[in-house]
Amino acid sequence: MQLAKLASGIRKGDRAALAKGITLAENDPGRAAALLRRFGPPGRAFVLGVTGPPGTGKSSLVDALIGSYRKEGLKVGVIAVDPTSPLTGGALLGDRVRMMSHSADRKVFIRSMASRGWSGGLSRAATQTIRLMDAAGFDMVILETVGIGQSDIEVVGVSHAVLVVLMPGLGDDIQVSKAGLMEIGDVYVVNKSDLEGADPMVVSILSLFRGAKRSPPVLKASALTGEGIEKLVGAVDAVRAKLGSGDRSVKLRSVRGMIVETARGAAMARFASVSEKGADRLAERVLDGDMTVEAAAAKLSS
Amino acid sequence: MQLAKLASGIRKGDRAALAKGITLAENDPGRAAALLRRFGPPGRAFVLGVTGPPGTGKSSLVDALIGSYRKEGLKVGVIAVDPTSPLTGGALLGDRVRMMSHSADRKVFIRSMASRGWSGGLSRAATQTIRLMDAAGFDMVILETVGIGQSDIEVVGVSHAVLVVLMPGLGDDIQVSKAGLMEIGDVYVVNKSDLEGADPMVVSILSLFRGAKRSPPVLKASALTGEGIEKLVGAVDAVRAKLGSGDRSVKLRSVRGMIVETARGAAMARFASVSEKGADRLAERVLDGDMTVEAAAAKLSS
Repeated sequence: MQLAKLASGIRKGDRAALAKGITLAENDPGRAAALLRRFGPPGRAFVLGVTGPPGTGKSSLVDALIGSYRKEGLKVGVIAVDPTSPLTGGALLGDRVRMMSHSADRKVFIRSMASRGWSGGLSRAATQTIRLMDAAGFDMVILETVGIGQSDIEVVGVSHAVLVVLMPGLGDDIQVSKAGLMEIGDVYVVNKSDLEGADPMVVSILSLFRGAKRSPPVLKASALTGEGIEKLVGAVDAVRAKLGSGDRSVKLRSVRGMIVETARGAAMARFASVSEKGADRLAERVLDGDMTVEAAAAKLSS
Repeated sequence: MQLAKLASGIRKGDRAALAKGITLAENDPGRAAALLRRFGPPGRAFVLGVTGPPGTGKSSLVDALIGSYRKEGLKVGVIAVDPTSPLTGGALLGDRVRMMSHSADRKVFIRSMASRGWSGGLSRAATQTIRLMDAAGFDMVILETVGIGQSDIEVVGVSHAVLVVLMPGLGDDIQVSKAGLMEIGDVYVVNKSDLEGADPMVVSILSLFRGAKRSPPVLKASALTGEGIEKLVGAVDAVRAKLGSGDRSVKLRSVRGMIVETARGAAMARFASVSEKGADRLAERVLDGDMTVEAAAAKLSS
């Protein structure tokens, strides 16, 4: 399909065109870049990063958030970044299945995306997808990733606000402080509040911020029962209102994140293409004492 | 200190010298490379990767493994890779504290290490540290990381065998399949077997391998009560025996992983040094519609 026609379709909010654009982002980032050149700078959509350890029920919570934003009449895009399986390289369908309750809604667009092995938790494709959704007139883009040290940095970079999802019984405050999640959240939620230990968990997170410069809201919610979802949406809305979609510094932060992620993705892609071929032969030479690991690494990258 | 003297100290197993070498690896990888040039190719130590989601009790299990290997008379090095906090960049001391029971043992060397923001889960420093421990005559190097999609690939790369640690109640088989942990383990253990749901978890993991080409052992253990630890050590030993420390292909895989990690670490370090300075100004230009995100990214990397 011609890029001009594709761009026009996306601008009109055509779902098939958007899907094609995202597929380009996944398979041919150069051509996706050419497509994106046809749109103005990003800035319409509010990008909400949702991150937290695996198993905390992020997807179910995102499902509940979608429902709430739809009631407000907002058009909602969701990018669910799955950690890549090292061998298959594929995204699992779990998230999509769990968010099925909104799959028939024409004002909701959900896309699962594998984080590619080499390129880090959040792929360049996800960054381009945010911009495609922005161009397609989405009001809200929810970017869901597994937050462990690495990918959460990237989420912070491109998001306007970050929601950190935790759950009771994962080891108290350690899961927050250890995974580096403490500094990145604008809102914290202890999901699965129907489980035992939710209140102590809230207290424990709050105590981490005692004496700190900032005190982000720490809430309880249960995607299962719906309890606390309204309050959670309210807390995110408060951040949205405070940041304001017109706030240039917030937009700048997000665009800056997009630039850095794109540059990094390109660097990693270059690196991935050279790393496979010569590595085995070089390993032989290192093991034989012919060269050092560093010399082999330099040769691999040259 | 002169590198010759440092190398000689490390070769003799001097702890202070080893600690200095590791500090070099963390702060000055180039000088650490010069130090490593003084040793032969790596190959003495058996490198056991230990990975799994956060909160599964990997460190306590590693503590129990150390105890068991010490009874065998083995010299054990431990590298605990902490996900980096994006703002502080520091490794937390939790792991070291939890492994205190062996901190007075002169045949045990434990080092916590932050995975640096840009460079991926497992830093180049960790790779160099493995080689330093190898040169210092350690029989076993345990490399503990948080396994989520990204860092587990890297662990697989440099390890001779991988132990995947899970726990009951984290969401059944999803935690295994979703995090891409299914393909990488040589041994699986459901830790915290004192908690409810351990047996169903074992069954659930076993079912993931039904019909698959390989069927790695899936065990239960409790670092707390000591239950199952002996069996676990036996299972890891069986892999060690099968792989054999003399097996060249296994050594090759590990050296190959070291080369790739070193090359990647160097590439990321180069990228990190350029990414900060111009990014804000470029973001301004993108937001003003002067240039695209891709053009800004290309400029940032040039």
